[in-house]
Amino acid sequence: VARRESQVVLGLDPDPARLWPGSADAVPAEGPPAKRAAVAVAAHCRAIIDAAGPACVGAKLQLACFERLGAPGWDALAAVASHARDAGLLVLADAKRGDIAVSATAYAQALAGATPTPFGPVAGLGADAFTASPYLGRDALAALVEVARPAGAGVLVLVRTSNPGARDLQELALADGGPLWERAAALVTDLGEAGETGLTDVGAVVGATAPEHLARARALMPGAVLLLPGVGAQGGRVEDLAPAFAEHRAGGLVTASRSIVHADTGGGGAPATSARAEAERLRAAAWALG
Amino acid sequence: VARRESQVVLGLDPDPARLWPGSADAVPAEGPPAKRAAVAVAAHCRAIIDAAGPACVGAKLQLACFERLGAPGWDALAAVASHARDAGLLVLADAKRGDIAVSATAYAQALAGATPTPFGPVAGLGADAFTASPYLGRDALAALVEVARPAGAGVLVLVRTSNPGARDLQELALADGGPLWERAAALVTDLGEAGETGLTDVGAVVGATAPEHLARARALMPGAVLLLPGVGAQGGRVEDLAPAFAEHRAGGLVTASRSIVHADTGGGGAPATSARAEAERLRAAAWALG
Repeated sequence: VARRESQVVLGLDPDPARLWPGSADAVPAEGPPAKRAAVAVAAHCRAIIDAAGPACVGAKLQLACFERLGAPGWDALAAVASHARDAGLLVLADAKRGDIAVSATAYAQALAGATPTPFGPVAGLGADAFTASPYLGRDALAALVEVARPAGAGVLVLVRTSNPGARDLQELALADGGPLWERAAALVTDLGEAGETGLTDVGAVVGATAPEHLARARALMPGAVLLLPGVGAQGGRVEDLAPAFAEHRAGGLVTASRSIVHADTGGGGAPATSARAEAERLRAAAWALG
Repeated sequence: VARRESQVVLGLDPDPARLWPGSADAVPAEGPPAKRAAVAVAAHCRAIIDAAGPACVGAKLQLACFERLGAPGWDALAAVASHARDAGLLVLADAKRGDIAVSATAYAQALAGATPTPFGPVAGLGADAFTASPYLGRDALAALVEVARPAGAGVLVLVRTSNPGARDLQELALADGGPLWERAAALVTDLGEAGETGLTDVGAVVGATAPEHLARARALMPGAVLLLPGVGAQGGRVEDLAPAFAEHRAGGLVTASRSIVHADTGGGGAPATSARAEAERLRAAAWALG
């Protein structure tokens, strides 16, 4: 964050029906739709990284959008992660995984670790961090951290998400006081270990669409990196995110997807130019918050 | 369930380091470890299906175990799903996905639907049902159902899981009364639509390790199919699951993985014979409950 002077994470959630012009140029004329679509999706993501990447500190890959293209989609995911890394970006796997311990271990191996096999170790995606769901509780999250930590990767736990449905469970008031999401926040604080910067290796997803919770989230998770989705298309405003950066400039990562990728909608400019301009605008706005 | 006289779901969560003998027979002598391991994993799963499948109604594929082998793992996943289908088994994708609406749509396309692309539609895994996490609330689950329903697929929502950490969030008492998991159960009932049998297309995961909750879960979700993990290796007993079957024999699906697949541990028998015997024992025990 300090080196790039950016807290912006570029969200990549490619829809094969809405790719940048030119994405299909290298697609073979024949072949299974999944393979052809995956080539186009990878080209689209690479172009976005090339355009907007310099204003960002990381790229967040939405795994759902790659998985729906099957094995070729998973190949595209690995290729895009590699391209982002080569562009100097941190790679965040937006996976929202959560499972019982033995399966959580397998997910962490897939995303940040490696899997021992009789044929040699199989490297995972090599993500610098991935998102996880807290619904299964502490043991399930601990299993993820156990694999991620030695790989130098972080785990970003869903605490208070950016969607309207966040109110259905996460904001329910508990008999012992406070809303449910504060217990998820307590798990984050409990599981995280601080590094040299004071920031911990277990962070949290806190939606930018409900900034009224941000100061409280920061108080409950003083050392956590807060991933802040929901700016732009979902209605969140970067100006409301100051509490995330109060302790440390890298304490908040502002993620934006559609508002950067489709910044030219209606504007008539080239998508690359508009994307870079929007990422740069967001970068400056967040950096100005301290 | 009626046709096969079985409520047993065969859990497949392959560990490349612990495969059945012979699984590596068709593995090429050279090639990337991921590709070789995926061939062995697929052979292992096919052998288990062939051995234990006749006593079961479905196969539950743990996606984490395939994802950790990357694109070849996803190919193996599709091959195993296809083999299970050919063996007359329902295919349950144990994915525990949950994301904001637009990404939830993509996950449902990956697992049960199809993705429209300029190169033609890309078929998903073709699962008959998949598991999902409720942490993001109603809108996130509704987006999954919206894709699954027209595909004839069910969504099985995590309600009260089988792991020790289930107590950390799911059992927290709410200010308005009841534990959190009952609100997840209410979402299941709210979102499900009943078919001819009276069973609904949104079901629930309720751990067999906490049978004290089963009667209450059934009361809150009268038409839901309850997927019951945790029998065997995790300590649950099939005899305690009667409330799940009270309304309908297909109202409960007993899933077992390690206790079937590694039934021969210590016994000295062939794994296929032991697996079939254990699946048959479980089938008979559950069927006897009504």
